[in-house]
Amino acid sequence: MNAPVTIEVLARDGDARAGILRTPHGAVETPTFMPVGTKATVKGLTPDDLRAVGAGVVLGNTYHLYLRPGPELIREAGGLHAFSGWNGPMLTDSGGYQVFSLAKTRSISEDGVEFASVYDGSVHVFTPELTTRVQGDLGADVAMVLDECPPTGAGHQYHAESLRRTARWAERCKAAHERRGQALFGIVQGGLFADLRRESLERTVEIGFDGYAVGGLSVGESRAEMLDTLAVVAPGLPPEKPRYFMGIGDPVGILQVIALGVDMFDCVLPTRLARHGAALTTQGRLNLKNARFRRDLGPLDPECGCETCTGYTRAYLAHLVREDEILGHRLLTLHNVHFMTDLCRRARQAIFEGRFEEWSRAWVSRHEAERKSAGPV
Amino acid sequence: MNAPVTIEVLARDGDARAGILRTPHGAVETPTFMPVGTKATVKGLTPDDLRAVGAGVVLGNTYHLYLRPGPELIREAGGLHAFSGWNGPMLTDSGGYQVFSLAKTRSISEDGVEFASVYDGSVHVFTPELTTRVQGDLGADVAMVLDECPPTGAGHQYHAESLRRTARWAERCKAAHERRGQALFGIVQGGLFADLRRESLERTVEIGFDGYAVGGLSVGESRAEMLDTLAVVAPGLPPEKPRYFMGIGDPVGILQVIALGVDMFDCVLPTRLARHGAALTTQGRLNLKNARFRRDLGPLDPECGCETCTGYTRAYLAHLVREDEILGHRLLTLHNVHFMTDLCRRARQAIFEGRFEEWSRAWVSRHEAERKSAGPV
Repeated sequence: MNAPVTIEVLARDGDARAGILRTPHGAVETPTFMPVGTKATVKGLTPDDLRAVGAGVVLGNTYHLYLRPGPELIREAGGLHAFSGWNGPMLTDSGGYQVFSLAKTRSISEDGVEFASVYDGSVHVFTPELTTRVQGDLGADVAMVLDECPPTGAGHQYHAESLRRTARWAERCKAAHERRGQALFGIVQGGLFADLRRESLERTVEIGFDGYAVGGLSVGESRAEMLDTLAVVAPGLPPEKPRYFMGIGDPVGILQVIALGVDMFDCVLPTRLARHGAALTTQGRLNLKNARFRRDLGPLDPECGCETCTGYTRAYLAHLVREDEILGHRLLTLHNVHFMTDLCRRARQAIFEGRFEEWSRAWVSRHEAERKSAGPV
Repeated sequence: MNAPVTIEVLARDGDARAGILRTPHGAVETPTFMPVGTKATVKGLTPDDLRAVGAGVVLGNTYHLYLRPGPELIREAGGLHAFSGWNGPMLTDSGGYQVFSLAKTRSISEDGVEFASVYDGSVHVFTPELTTRVQGDLGADVAMVLDECPPTGAGHQYHAESLRRTARWAERCKAAHERRGQALFGIVQGGLFADLRRESLERTVEIGFDGYAVGGLSVGESRAEMLDTLAVVAPGLPPEKPRYFMGIGDPVGILQVIALGVDMFDCVLPTRLARHGAALTTQGRLNLKNARFRRDLGPLDPECGCETCTGYTRAYLAHLVREDEILGHRLLTLHNVHFMTDLCRRARQAIFEGRFEEWSRAWVSRHEAERKSAGPV
């Protein structure tokens, strides 16, 4: 049987790669930033908006959707695509990350993880089989295995035991995965320990998945630690499979992981910043609550062609943000997602032209300089 | 000098009239429902959305815009059209209604009205000259005179003194009105007292305006009292001028005022209901928080062709509303405004066909029946 989701690498430049990710709901140019649609919506945006800003894959969160509105309803609606109206490629996480980051009470056993719902405190158990079946109901193009994301500061022994359990869970996920036309990705864990990362990589690849994610990074460690660890894992990932770095969304960070050969990444940062009145721009991050934007009749980002930057002024956006108008959240979200997809498009072009490292260095240094000259935000 | 805003009545059916309102920013078919863009935005919608749902005139609130972000900035931005991106017809109120309905402390004198800002308690004085000048800065197609909207329960004497002062203020507004290309509308007050309504009508028409509004109704009186009072005023309004009934936005109510010859009306109801998770439909008002919509995979209003009704299910909208997702507010606002503009379009058609009363009666009785059969919401 052919894999439902494949990547064709069209160009390489150092370790960076540019390609096409093919899914049952369409093809996506890589590297690609995946906006997060936590509760079956990328906050404030319609599917048409997402297409307009060039979004490729949209993420859904199994943890939230399992609790509300529940997988039965979404299955009955024809899956998350039909339910949300987004008919492009989609990926769901397993819910594991939310269980480990949100839940106040949880207990892990070989069988799975028990947790209390953030909504009403009701108790649930996620097993590899359950999260796989729920993701089958959601019906995204890509499902993820259930993994443990160990707590910050966990030591070598904790990580060793955790990654071995995660590998056993991954096997069970693969065995339980029945949804046709849906890919299943494995996740490499192991904290910041190179030996454990290698072990996790080996075991995960041995099981064999349609794609591989690197998890448990960008969770509080230094950027150097994150990149060193990714550099241990990336060369061992099967080159013919898609590679997904979980949870990175700052512009400089994504250029750094692209350089190490990552194809896909996601982060709530661009959408969360928007809700807090901040924009990602070629001049750095701008906080529209800052007084200097109140009377600024220029565009949000003079180099951006999105609807927000071509249709509205900084002064108007600052007014909307101050008044907590939902149009402000919407227009900033639109811009921030556009900014990320546009940055990926430029990175891809540079890879094709064999000048990714040079382009990336120039982009970052200009970005930093603009940020400094723009003054404190 | 030609009036900047005119109406051409194309058809009459009983007292109901259908026409074209011409403004410097385009023509609008009447009768027309005007969505309220309180703070330079119809909550959640872009100008493109407003065009897509057939909005004609958009309202701005002088009270709010005067306080935030201030008329200087909006003037500097090129007026409210340029600031908000809405390049169609626009009307601003004088701010009087908000002063009288929002302010905890206010004092009226012959000169004007002193009030404390709802935002920070700072003290301001609105005079006829000031509100006219501020509306000149905002630069809408239609400005309104400053009027007093007396408190509920005010007696004959209070209303008599108030409407006479309002008439003197109206004269001062007219004298102060200098903005070229902007119409100024007078407002008829007088509470529920037929003699005072006649007096206010006479004095307002005597001063002479580009259009006439009926104010101080739909503020808590019975529907019969409201219609009886409008019936006293409407026949005396100059037939060649636009007629604006202030503050009505329920579907049945607008059909009732159209029947009495009104061309324009506004209300926050459709947008406010949306924010509270309720939709105006041909089946009556639906509250999407109601449990019966959780698993309802049908469209919001099966007879509606708007983006919300053609793209999403009731179950999805109910999910968004329950999760307080801003996309839910946005999609319901879009639908509710579309519902109102569509209702006006149908009313207009019925007037052209000389069957407004019959059509209107059928619409209302079907609306009531559907509402009953749909059960409690």
